Amino acid sequence: MKAIVHIGLKPGVLDPQGRAIARSLGDLGFSEVTGARQGKVIELDMKGNDAEKAKASVIEMCEKLLANTVIESYKIDIEA
Amino acid sequence: MKAIVHIGLKPGVLDPQGRAIARSLGDLGFSEVTGARQGKVIELDMKGNDAEKAKASVIEMCEKLLANTVIESYKIDIEA
Repeated sequence: MKAIVHIGLKPGVLDPQGRAIARSLGDLGFSEVTGARQGKVIELDMKGNDAEKAKASVIEMCEKLLANTVIESYKIDIEA
Repeated sequence: MKAIVHIGLKPGVLDPQGRAIARSLGDLGFSEVTGARQGKVIELDMKGNDAEKAKASVIEMCEKLLANTVIESYKIDIEA
């Protein structure tokens, strides 16, 4: 089973990486880009077939290790 | 319009961040995790309404700036 965890900065949190990307794209002539934000994706390979259980376990992983919940939010997709 | 760019290491490329995550999760007692890979997501706000044109332009951005195409692959989703 696979768990895909999307982690991004919460709205309102300053995103210097995203800003750098937007500015660099502007400098390269891509004037259609008005803003950019960068997040990360973690793909986990997991044992077992119980999607409910896997999701609960991944939520715990996010709270304990993967995300900084003060400034980041996360979204979990479980794939068979 | 929004463009979501998923960038990940190509299969076979060593992913030290993913390994560190997998090991840390193991250390924390999440023994169900057998592997992890980390990638990034860039969300671009774009002017215009032509999805085809936007996609072509984002491909160019990936090749020129966003992805290191020697070791990374990318996937683009355009949202209205």
